[in-house]
Amino acid sequence: MLIIGEKINSSIKKVAAAMEKRDEEFLRKLAKDQVAAGSHFLEVNAGVFIEQEKDLMQWLVKLIQDVTDVPLCIDSPNPEVLEAGLSVTRGKSIINSLSFEKRRYDSIIPLVKQYRAGIIALCMDDDGIPKDTGKRVAIAKNLVHKLIRDGVTLEDIYLDVMLQPIATDGESGQTVLQTITMIRKEFPSIHITCGLSNGSFELPNRKLLNQAFAVAMVSHGMDVLMIDPLDARMMSLLFAINAVMGHDEFCGAYLDAHRCGRLAV
Amino acid sequence: MLIIGEKINSSIKKVAAAMEKRDEEFLRKLAKDQVAAGSHFLEVNAGVFIEQEKDLMQWLVKLIQDVTDVPLCIDSPNPEVLEAGLSVTRGKSIINSLSFEKRRYDSIIPLVKQYRAGIIALCMDDDGIPKDTGKRVAIAKNLVHKLIRDGVTLEDIYLDVMLQPIATDGESGQTVLQTITMIRKEFPSIHITCGLSNGSFELPNRKLLNQAFAVAMVSHGMDVLMIDPLDARMMSLLFAINAVMGHDEFCGAYLDAHRCGRLAV
Repeated sequence: MLIIGEKINSSIKKVAAAMEKRDEEFLRKLAKDQVAAGSHFLEVNAGVFIEQEKDLMQWLVKLIQDVTDVPLCIDSPNPEVLEAGLSVTRGKSIINSLSFEKRRYDSIIPLVKQYRAGIIALCMDDDGIPKDTGKRVAIAKNLVHKLIRDGVTLEDIYLDVMLQPIATDGESGQTVLQTITMIRKEFPSIHITCGLSNGSFELPNRKLLNQAFAVAMVSHGMDVLMIDPLDARMMSLLFAINAVMGHDEFCGAYLDAHRCGRLAV
Repeated sequence: MLIIGEKINSSIKKVAAAMEKRDEEFLRKLAKDQVAAGSHFLEVNAGVFIEQEKDLMQWLVKLIQDVTDVPLCIDSPNPEVLEAGLSVTRGKSIINSLSFEKRRYDSIIPLVKQYRAGIIALCMDDDGIPKDTGKRVAIAKNLVHKLIRDGVTLEDIYLDVMLQPIATDGESGQTVLQTITMIRKEFPSIHITCGLSNGSFELPNRKLLNQAFAVAMVSHGMDVLMIDPLDARMMSLLFAINAVMGHDEFCGAYLDAHRCGRLAV
């Protein structure tokens, strides 16, 4: 299981405020804390600052790399912003994201190749996000085959199964779990992820719903979780479900976490 | 989803002590608290008191029925004890349990018929519990067909998928989840349950592992949970996973629980 720490994201008000006033101390601490909590990647998103997004992205990447060596997940809809971020990263980044939408695909794929980056590939096309599981899986397959034809290796593909809010569509949870199961069967070694907190949008106690989603998704074959690693309950449940799934040999990581007092009960 | 409150069980030391000294107040409170927390059934087990098990079972059933009308899950390997309990129950009980083992099946089935009780049916036979998912599902199918031939209705069957400790078998979690998936596909309307806390046996922070197991199992199709309903986090996660799975229309029960302050975050 790989954890992408999601917190350095301008859609979080406190974080946006820190970005706006260039609060280096706050943001460096947020990077360090997320790594200490177990992140394998750190998300970087400055999307709400449309005018300054490019400069902010470069500033953030440099800032984060001052305090940690974990690779980054560079997140923007704008290829110029992605390139600005990628050009100053050390190590192998993930680009967040492309999809089967023609314009988006064509504008992002050159960056994936140039920087040999991992790529979060959204299971949607020019017609949007299919509600039907079969269609969503069909897009996933086509997308994977196209990426491979374009020279991307399977291990660099992170399929995003497009979780939609359960508040507006009661079936969206089941759809995503079935999609994960079918993709995992088709591509045993591919990475599967999603914007996990989308599912709980507009509901109270979102952390609780996110925890339930995360455990259910891992139990169906998701292996990359974009989450808040500072949520100790979430991290504890992930240690637990890894042990439950037999992904943690002799429950070693679970027992270590217990011994270090990292399991929140 | 149906909750069987598991606490009135002599394998829990404190509860056994209360049974031993016939502590009516403690046991009545334990029954009331579990119902208030959301139990649809209450487990009753006096198995560690072999000599007095029969008397204790009757005493417990009467005592519990003084304070609640929820049906009981009468648990004993001994048909005489089961009969002693069933003979004083009001309403429709569940018998815990029979299996495909010939002696056990033949001794319990007359009670199932006589008391028109629900029956927890263990997916094991005279050769034990198969490690292989396919074999476990095959036993489940044979068991269901035999029970139906013997006059039991599908809705009275509670298949127990036989969760084994992950501490001694790293694959036991996956095996059980796959077994649930396959049984749910074969019998969409049957009840599926298990002794959930078996999975965490001999590991620390068992509540955490039980929570992860419960969420994963519900996400694969289990609908009857034998758990500690006084574990507020467990109950909160079950509200959450019910919403995630679309089993909770418009997230109504989840929102109610939130408004009443019942969600532990």
